[in-house]
Amino acid sequence: MQIQNKTLKTILPLYKEISLLNKMLAVLGWDQNVNLPAKAAQGRADQIAYLTQILTEKWLDPVMKKTVESLKEADGTSGEEKAMIRNLQYASEYYYKIPKDIIIKKSKVSSEAFMAWQKARVENDFPSFQPYLEQIIELNKQIAQHLGYEKNPYDAHLHLHEPGLTTKLCADIFGNIRPRLTQLLSRIQKSEVYRASKRKRPTHDRYQLDYQKQLSEYVLHLMGYDFQAGRMDISAHPFTTTMDRYDVRITTRYDEFDFRECYTSSVHEGGHALYEQGVNPEYDYTPLEGGVSMGIHESQSRFYENMVGRSPAFLQYLMTHFQKYFPKSSISSISELTLYLNEVEPGLIRTKADEVTYNLHIILRFEIENGLLNNKMQVKDLPEIWNSHMKQFLDVEPTDDRDGVLQDVHWSYGEFGYFPTYSLGNLYSAQIAKTLQKEIPMKDPLESGNLGEVHEWLKKNIYHYGSLYWPNELISRVTGEKLNPDYFIEYLTEKYERLYSLT
Amino acid sequence: MQIQNKTLKTILPLYKEISLLNKMLAVLGWDQNVNLPAKAAQGRADQIAYLTQILTEKWLDPVMKKTVESLKEADGTSGEEKAMIRNLQYASEYYYKIPKDIIIKKSKVSSEAFMAWQKARVENDFPSFQPYLEQIIELNKQIAQHLGYEKNPYDAHLHLHEPGLTTKLCADIFGNIRPRLTQLLSRIQKSEVYRASKRKRPTHDRYQLDYQKQLSEYVLHLMGYDFQAGRMDISAHPFTTTMDRYDVRITTRYDEFDFRECYTSSVHEGGHALYEQGVNPEYDYTPLEGGVSMGIHESQSRFYENMVGRSPAFLQYLMTHFQKYFPKSSISSISELTLYLNEVEPGLIRTKADEVTYNLHIILRFEIENGLLNNKMQVKDLPEIWNSHMKQFLDVEPTDDRDGVLQDVHWSYGEFGYFPTYSLGNLYSAQIAKTLQKEIPMKDPLESGNLGEVHEWLKKNIYHYGSLYWPNELISRVTGEKLNPDYFIEYLTEKYERLYSLT
Repeated sequence: MQIQNKTLKTILPLYKEISLLNKMLAVLGWDQNVNLPAKAAQGRADQIAYLTQILTEKWLDPVMKKTVESLKEADGTSGEEKAMIRNLQYASEYYYKIPKDIIIKKSKVSSEAFMAWQKARVENDFPSFQPYLEQIIELNKQIAQHLGYEKNPYDAHLHLHEPGLTTKLCADIFGNIRPRLTQLLSRIQKSEVYRASKRKRPTHDRYQLDYQKQLSEYVLHLMGYDFQAGRMDISAHPFTTTMDRYDVRITTRYDEFDFRECYTSSVHEGGHALYEQGVNPEYDYTPLEGGVSMGIHESQSRFYENMVGRSPAFLQYLMTHFQKYFPKSSISSISELTLYLNEVEPGLIRTKADEVTYNLHIILRFEIENGLLNNKMQVKDLPEIWNSHMKQFLDVEPTDDRDGVLQDVHWSYGEFGYFPTYSLGNLYSAQIAKTLQKEIPMKDPLESGNLGEVHEWLKKNIYHYGSLYWPNELISRVTGEKLNPDYFIEYLTEKYERLYSLT
Repeated sequence: MQIQNKTLKTILPLYKEISLLNKMLAVLGWDQNVNLPAKAAQGRADQIAYLTQILTEKWLDPVMKKTVESLKEADGTSGEEKAMIRNLQYASEYYYKIPKDIIIKKSKVSSEAFMAWQKARVENDFPSFQPYLEQIIELNKQIAQHLGYEKNPYDAHLHLHEPGLTTKLCADIFGNIRPRLTQLLSRIQKSEVYRASKRKRPTHDRYQLDYQKQLSEYVLHLMGYDFQAGRMDISAHPFTTTMDRYDVRITTRYDEFDFRECYTSSVHEGGHALYEQGVNPEYDYTPLEGGVSMGIHESQSRFYENMVGRSPAFLQYLMTHFQKYFPKSSISSISELTLYLNEVEPGLIRTKADEVTYNLHIILRFEIENGLLNNKMQVKDLPEIWNSHMKQFLDVEPTDDRDGVLQDVHWSYGEFGYFPTYSLGNLYSAQIAKTLQKEIPMKDPLESGNLGEVHEWLKKNIYHYGSLYWPNELISRVTGEKLNPDYFIEYLTEKYERLYSLT
């Protein structure tokens, strides 16, 4: 990749430093989640805070700032140059538009709020977390003012998490899918298969952790995950992190009594990792490196988790391997395995939700974030709001806040606008799968475990481009149209009508 | 700890940044040695180089430099302040006296030399490594000129590794111990026990890695290693690293056919870690944090490795645990276990050497380093020099350079003056043990496994002080006299006369 624009040429070495700092932060963060001894929490937090400060100063360096601000997208002499300039401006907005004291305050408040949240969650004590959340919302309102927005302060935060995303777009999409999801759920719950599966859930099986790991690694190999350029470890909450283009690590977690935890986490994170491992190496250390957005990233993880890992066709292939590792499991047929991995059941916890109910959890969070940033809801009322929404959306009600409003970490980190990208990922994944399916009928690869062709297609059409195309453009290029939630509903309906013998 | 000196007060926040950078480098380095995926070597090297550059710039920051240089040890209003000023000046010498371009060149050449050494070693090809080593020696000569020295350029490098160490001091000590070691070795080799043990070495035992790990962890617990403030992992070459005062990690390695590798490595590194975990917490993030020198550090690791882990009294205690973990081992008596762990046998490899021959390997390296820096030896002649010295010192001769001049990594890193600190550690450990023994007869703790009192004594007399006292002062304070090699020879003689029934 030749760079013609001279200003851009002078920025790239500075950007490489930013890229290196981000990768080192990834190392510190990975180790914090995977290895950290109990007493080392404060020390590691101090290291991360200091490295973050160095990173902030690097963005605010006068030469860097002046040069980035002097560039216009149109100055780029190629699509790649234009995209680099666009991404530089997008990434720098946070540092250039928001006063430094607010950035520092937000980082400090988030750090305190995270600790307060951990304690509040253990003690089921929302009021102790309330003042921290109030501070975060106040800061996020200020941040929205500095970033600017057309109609809704929430837009500024959505755009931070997914370029171009707006409250209106989310509201339209969610307004479209919510009744259709609810209707599908209701059909499932009325089915005989649903009632029967509720009666005979396996409860006494044990799955040796070593074998869970081996089964996951086997599937990751099939997917094309490069273990020479990554590794799999254990953490409380599974995640993927890029320390280098040749060091994309994933984590998983184990439940001795339920192999689904490890299996779906590994495959999900593996999907994220394939994306990062597959970006054009010419983009290394430039603003085009890495996946383009959280929504597109989530589409890749959800594709492998749901459309491969949980698909009846692939599970048909996997069954012999499953039985080799777990000969004593009470799950003894392909259909049992398939139903077990695709069980639909409204529940309290987002991260454990099935494909049908998952987005209802997100819509609830979207409405609350929007309400809070627009002064239509008050933090003190959140537990009640949460519970009544849960009742309304999913017909379940938390008995305490641990399983309700305190269940997610995101708000304590100061993140508003993150949740909707999970739903976008689900929708993108179905739309992409539909296109893929036209070019490569998935039946063969899934039933044979030969996923190489699928991997190559995703690499060529998505991974390779890294952050070159923004989500809207990418999805249009790949599928020929903009985001269309019909594909997701169609995918779900077809899959679950069959699984639950709906008529 | 109250700081009175105003200049020192202004430096400490800057020093904290240096301390944080060093700790982050420790994280990157630990991960590099323990976890790094095969393809990620270059990326990690780039990250480490960049963070090292930030660290160098922090030292060279004009405010930092001016302030450090303006301070005199006498300005300190307490012993702690004086020591901080002394340590600041000691640590900054490398950055302030040596021109930046030489520092950068040395870092670059070392990085290339390390790769060349790895390749040369695999291919048993010393000539391919020769030009790199020549460059390193040339740079080290220049560095010695910039640092300054009284008589011998080697002094400058010895002082970098152990404050106050000189060529003359090493030569005196080594001249003293070499004939005494050779004589003891010769007595051992003539003994009946030696000849008998050579005949019946266990060769077909297998030691399950999990149990090796558990045995090591058990001994580390006895030693007082805090697993809440550290952890044990695996690496090709065992090491200890401090990422934070509450995050002191050790590594070990396993040989399925020989449990000694894991056991002695774990206990050795555990000794280093106890030192770091035991420093006065008031010294955190100041120039007094961490162990004072490589020699004193090695005394703490060797103390646990040899005077605890390999002592007949402790092995008598350990035998029941050993048999619990390894009931099928052909080692079936305490005396067999003791002899197996203390076997004396001249060999080619320093890291596998027993206590009697170990220092002869060091003396050989000392003579070569001295010869090279003073133009009395040429790099091209090293393989011959090495082999003839081995013949002369240990009566063994390498058949190839892999097991000869290419066996150690140190020179490829650019380190001259490192090896002698290993011997200092051995000598210090015997002198310290002698004093400890007067206050706490070691027989009871070793035979009962109750090592708490020993740990407390070392903590109170050595660990606690961190880098407050320089090695000479520390050893005088603890033992009442300066370094005296007689204690080491006396310790060896007594131990091996008994083990080998010498008369």
